[in-house]
Amino acid sequence: MLQWLREYRRAALPGDISAGIVVAMMMIPQGMAYALVAGLPPVVGIYASIFPPLLYALFGTSSTQSVGPMAIVSLMTASTLAPLATPGTGLYGVLAAQLALMSGLVLLACGLLRIGFLANFFSRPVMSGFTIGSAIVIAWGQLRTLVGGPLTLDATRDWYARWPSIALGLGSLALLVMAREWLAPLLRRLRVKPVVADIAAKLAPMFVVLGATALVPLLGLEALGVATVGAVPAGLPGLNLATSSGHWQALLQPALLIGFMVFLISMSGAQALALKRGGEKLASNRELVGLGAANVGSALSGGFPVTGSISRSAVNFAAGANTQLASMITAGLLALALVAPTGWLALLPLPTLAATIIVAVLGMLDWSTLRTAWRYDRADALALLATAGGVLVLGVEAGVLVGVALSMGALIWRASRPHIAVLGRIHGTEHFRNVDRYSAETTPGLLMLRIDAGLFFGNVDAVNERIDEELAQRASTTHLVLVLSAVNAIDTSALFGLGELNASLRQRGVTLHLAEVKGPVMDRLRDSDLLGQLSGQVFLSAANAWDRLAGSSAAGRPQPGA
Amino acid sequence: MLQWLREYRRAALPGDISAGIVVAMMMIPQGMAYALVAGLPPVVGIYASIFPPLLYALFGTSSTQSVGPMAIVSLMTASTLAPLATPGTGLYGVLAAQLALMSGLVLLACGLLRIGFLANFFSRPVMSGFTIGSAIVIAWGQLRTLVGGPLTLDATRDWYARWPSIALGLGSLALLVMAREWLAPLLRRLRVKPVVADIAAKLAPMFVVLGATALVPLLGLEALGVATVGAVPAGLPGLNLATSSGHWQALLQPALLIGFMVFLISMSGAQALALKRGGEKLASNRELVGLGAANVGSALSGGFPVTGSISRSAVNFAAGANTQLASMITAGLLALALVAPTGWLALLPLPTLAATIIVAVLGMLDWSTLRTAWRYDRADALALLATAGGVLVLGVEAGVLVGVALSMGALIWRASRPHIAVLGRIHGTEHFRNVDRYSAETTPGLLMLRIDAGLFFGNVDAVNERIDEELAQRASTTHLVLVLSAVNAIDTSALFGLGELNASLRQRGVTLHLAEVKGPVMDRLRDSDLLGQLSGQVFLSAANAWDRLAGSSAAGRPQPGA
Repeated sequence: MLQWLREYRRAALPGDISAGIVVAMMMIPQGMAYALVAGLPPVVGIYASIFPPLLYALFGTSSTQSVGPMAIVSLMTASTLAPLATPGTGLYGVLAAQLALMSGLVLLACGLLRIGFLANFFSRPVMSGFTIGSAIVIAWGQLRTLVGGPLTLDATRDWYARWPSIALGLGSLALLVMAREWLAPLLRRLRVKPVVADIAAKLAPMFVVLGATALVPLLGLEALGVATVGAVPAGLPGLNLATSSGHWQALLQPALLIGFMVFLISMSGAQALALKRGGEKLASNRELVGLGAANVGSALSGGFPVTGSISRSAVNFAAGANTQLASMITAGLLALALVAPTGWLALLPLPTLAATIIVAVLGMLDWSTLRTAWRYDRADALALLATAGGVLVLGVEAGVLVGVALSMGALIWRASRPHIAVLGRIHGTEHFRNVDRYSAETTPGLLMLRIDAGLFFGNVDAVNERIDEELAQRASTTHLVLVLSAVNAIDTSALFGLGELNASLRQRGVTLHLAEVKGPVMDRLRDSDLLGQLSGQVFLSAANAWDRLAGSSAAGRPQPGA
Repeated sequence: MLQWLREYRRAALPGDISAGIVVAMMMIPQGMAYALVAGLPPVVGIYASIFPPLLYALFGTSSTQSVGPMAIVSLMTASTLAPLATPGTGLYGVLAAQLALMSGLVLLACGLLRIGFLANFFSRPVMSGFTIGSAIVIAWGQLRTLVGGPLTLDATRDWYARWPSIALGLGSLALLVMAREWLAPLLRRLRVKPVVADIAAKLAPMFVVLGATALVPLLGLEALGVATVGAVPAGLPGLNLATSSGHWQALLQPALLIGFMVFLISMSGAQALALKRGGEKLASNRELVGLGAANVGSALSGGFPVTGSISRSAVNFAAGANTQLASMITAGLLALALVAPTGWLALLPLPTLAATIIVAVLGMLDWSTLRTAWRYDRADALALLATAGGVLVLGVEAGVLVGVALSMGALIWRASRPHIAVLGRIHGTEHFRNVDRYSAETTPGLLMLRIDAGLFFGNVDAVNERIDEELAQRASTTHLVLVLSAVNAIDTSALFGLGELNASLRQRGVTLHLAEVKGPVMDRLRDSDLLGQLSGQVFLSAANAWDRLAGSSAAGRPQPGA
C-alpha cells in the first residue's frame, strides 16, 4: 500500500500536477453529467469524485486510473433505482449511496476472496456490444433533456415554446462535436504540441459548459424556460442509509451486477493503459479492493456507484500522470470547488449538460471491434450484436446477463471439444505421434489416445464419446491406452468419468491403461479408488505400454479385465 | 425418428412388456406423490405420465429413459408457483401446465439451436450438492403431511387428535424403509432371482399404497381425520392457459431454469444408463427436443413439468426394457388406469403418499460423491456443500444459480491458467522441449514460449502476464517467439490481445515472432491486420526461428521493430 508514495521521485511531480489539474477540469462537467444519467442532482457527481480517487490511490494498483462517475455504471444505477424511488426525492439519493456501499462491499469481498480471475469473464466482443448498447440507451435518454421536453410530435405547440432550450442544446452539441472532430487537428496545424492539442480538445466540454452557464444570466434564459441545475449545497453530505430491509434486499442483486461491471469496466481500461505504459503490473485482487474502497468512499460522501473511466484515465495518462498523486490532486481540486462559492453551478443549463453526455457516449461507439470480429470470427461478431441488442431491447441488467451467457456458452463450447490424437509409433524410435500428421505405425488390438487438455466436468462426456467413436472404428481393440502427457489436472467429475469408462470398457472386453501420468496428477489419483479398480496398468511411457501390449494384442489374445 | 421401431426385433418384446408393466406400477404412486410435491392434486401426476413418455419415445434417443414427474422438478414447480397462486385453486393448475409448456418450448428451442453442449454446464459435485439440498427440502416439506398437521410443539392437544394420521404415516414410512433395506436381500435368500428381488423391492411403494388405501374404508380412517386424495375426475383434461400477460412474464425466467434442470437431470441419468448398456449413443440435441416435446405434451394434458427420472429409468432397464416400446406400454397402462373406475384412488391416504416421497428422496441422498471429492479434491467437495447449502438457505432456484456460478467459476479459473513452456533446443537436433523438463539449450536474447492452450478471452490476459514475467527475468531478450503448435484456435479477444502485445513489445525493443502456426489458425489470421502489423516474422518451425534469430541475438544486435 502506498508503495508508489515511498518510492516517489521528484521528477514525477510536474506531470502529476498538470494531469491532476486537467482531469479535475474534465471531471466537473463529466461528474455532473453522469449524476444526471443516474437520475441524481448533478452536484452528487462531484461528491462522488472526491473520496473514490483518494481511496483508489491507497488500495488500487494502476497508477493512472481515474476513478469516479462513469456513464454505463450511472445507467445501471438509474435502471436499478427507477422501480424503487422517484428521481429527485431524498429516498432516491439515499438508495444511490446505499447501492454504492453494497457494490463496494461486494467488490471488497471478492478481493478478499481473491477471485480477481473473474476479470476474464467477458469476451472483448461481448464487452464492446455491451458498451455500444449502453451508449445508445444513454444518448437516447438524454435527448429529452437536450430539447427541454418530451420527444412526441403531437406536442407541436410545445416544441415552439421550447426553442431556447433546443437552441442551447443543439448549439452545445454542435460545438462539442466540432471540438472533438476539428479542434485537435486545428491546434496542431497552429504548431501546438500534439499532446497539448489533444488535451485541449478533451477540455472543450468544460469550456462549453462554462460558456453556456455564462449565457444563462446574460440572456435571461431561465425566464425563457431553460432548465438549470439549481441550488447546490456547499460541502459534502454524510452517509445516510434506508432502514427498510426490503430496500436492502431489492438492491442486493443489482449490487452484485454493478460490482461485477465496475470491475470489468475498470480492468479493461487499466489493462489497455498498462500495456501502453509497457509492462505495468496490475494485481486484479488488489484492483477489486481498490474499487471496493472507492465505492464505499463514494457512499460515505453521499455519492453513487463509481468505477475507473477509460476516457478520463487516457486523458490522465496523456496529460502526464506518473503516479496516483495525479488522482489525489484531482480529488483535492474538486473538494476545493465544493468549498468555494458554488452559486454559479446553479445556473448551469441542463440542455448543455445533456449535450456533453451525448457526445461523450457517442465516443464510446467503437465499431472497430465489430468490424474486426465480422471479418475474423463471425460467431464473435454475432455475440457482440446479440449483447448490444440485449441491452437495447431487454435493458442494461439483462444485457449483462446476455453477455455473461454468451461468453460462458463460448467457454463451455470450447471446453467441450478437447483435442484428442490417435498415437502411432515412429518406426524404429521411442517416439509416438498423432497418426493424422505423421506416418506412424499402429498395431491391431491396441489403441493409444493422447488427450490434449486437462480432464474436467466440461469435457469428460466429450472424451468418453470420442473414445466410443474410435473404438467403434476399431472393433478388434482389446487394449486402450490413454496417454496423459498433456493432462495437467483431473477433477472429481472426470475421476468419476474415468471410473465409469473403466467399468463400461471392462464389460465390452477392452482393458483400460494409463500412460505418462504427470506427477501431481498421479499423487491425486493415489487418493482415489480409480487405480485399484483399473482393469489395466499405469505405464511410465507410451513406449513401455507399446512394448508390453503390442505383442499380446497382435497375437490376438483378448484380455477382458486383468 | 422411430428408427428403433423400424428395426424392432421380436426378441425385445418380452423384456419391453415386463418393464412397461413394472414401471407403470411404480409410476402410479410416484406420479401422484410428485404431483403432491408440486402442490397439485395427485391425479395430475398421472396425467403427466401419459403423453410425456410417448412423445419422448418419438423424439428422444435414450431407449430406457423413463420420462414423467420427478421430485426435484416438482419442487422447482412448487417454488415457482407459490408466489403466483394458491395450491388447490384452478389458477394454480393452469399455471403449472403453462410452466410445462414454456419449459418445453425453451427445451425445443435449445434443441433446434443445437446447444446441447450445455449439458456440460454442471460439475458432478455441484449436481450432487443440488440433489442433496433438494432432497432435504422435499423431505422436510412432506413431514407436515406425514403427521397430518403442523410440526409446532405448542399444539400438543392437536397432536393427540392426529394420532391416526401419525400412525398411518409413520407405519407406512417404517414399512417402506424396511422394504428398501431388507426386502431384496430377504427375497434373494429365498432363492428369488436377484433381478426379480430388486424389482419387487422397487414395487414396495405400490403395495404399501394399495394396502393403506384398503385400510381407509376398513378402519373408517377418514372419519378419524386422515386426509385422503379425494374425488378424482376420469379422463384427461385439456390445455388451459392463463390469459394474463403478467403470468407469462413471471413464468419466463423460472421456465428457463426448469428447462435447464430438466435437461441436466435427464442427461445425467441417461448417460449413466448408456454407459451401463455399453456404448449406446445419446445425441444431446435430440434429447433436448425429446424432453421439450414431453413437456409440451404434459402441458397439453393438464400436467406439469416432467423429466427423465434416474431411479425409474434404472428400474425400467433392470426390468428388461430394450427399446422405447417399454415406455409406450407404461403410458398405455396409465391411460387405462384413468379410464378405469378411479373411485378407489379417492381413498388413498395422504400420510402414506408423503411417506413414499420421503423414502424416495432420502434415496437421492448419495454421499459417495461428497466422500470421494473430500478425499480427492477439497475444492470440489466445498462446491458440493455450497450448492447444497444454497438450496437449503436460499431456495431451489438460487441453488441452481449458485451451482452455475461455482461451476463457471471453476471453468474460468481453469481457463485462466494456461500451461506455457519456455522452450530450448535439444543439443544437435531439430527438437525443442520445455527447459524445465529436458536439458535443452537456450540462447541469450531469444526467448521461445510454447502456449499449450487455444488462445481466447479467458486466458489472453494470463498469457500476456506470463510473457511479461518471463521477459522481466530475461532483460536482454530482443526476440520473442511464440510457438503455437498446440494452439487450435485464436478468438477475436485473443487477436486483439496479440496485437496489443506486439505494440507493447515493439515499444520495449522486443520483436514478436510466431512459429508453427496451425493451418486453420493461419487461414483465420490472414483475414486480420495482425500479420501486417507484426514486428517480427512467422516461421514454419521452431528450428527455423532459432536458426534465423539465435545468431543475430547472440551477436547482441537488438532489433527494435523490424
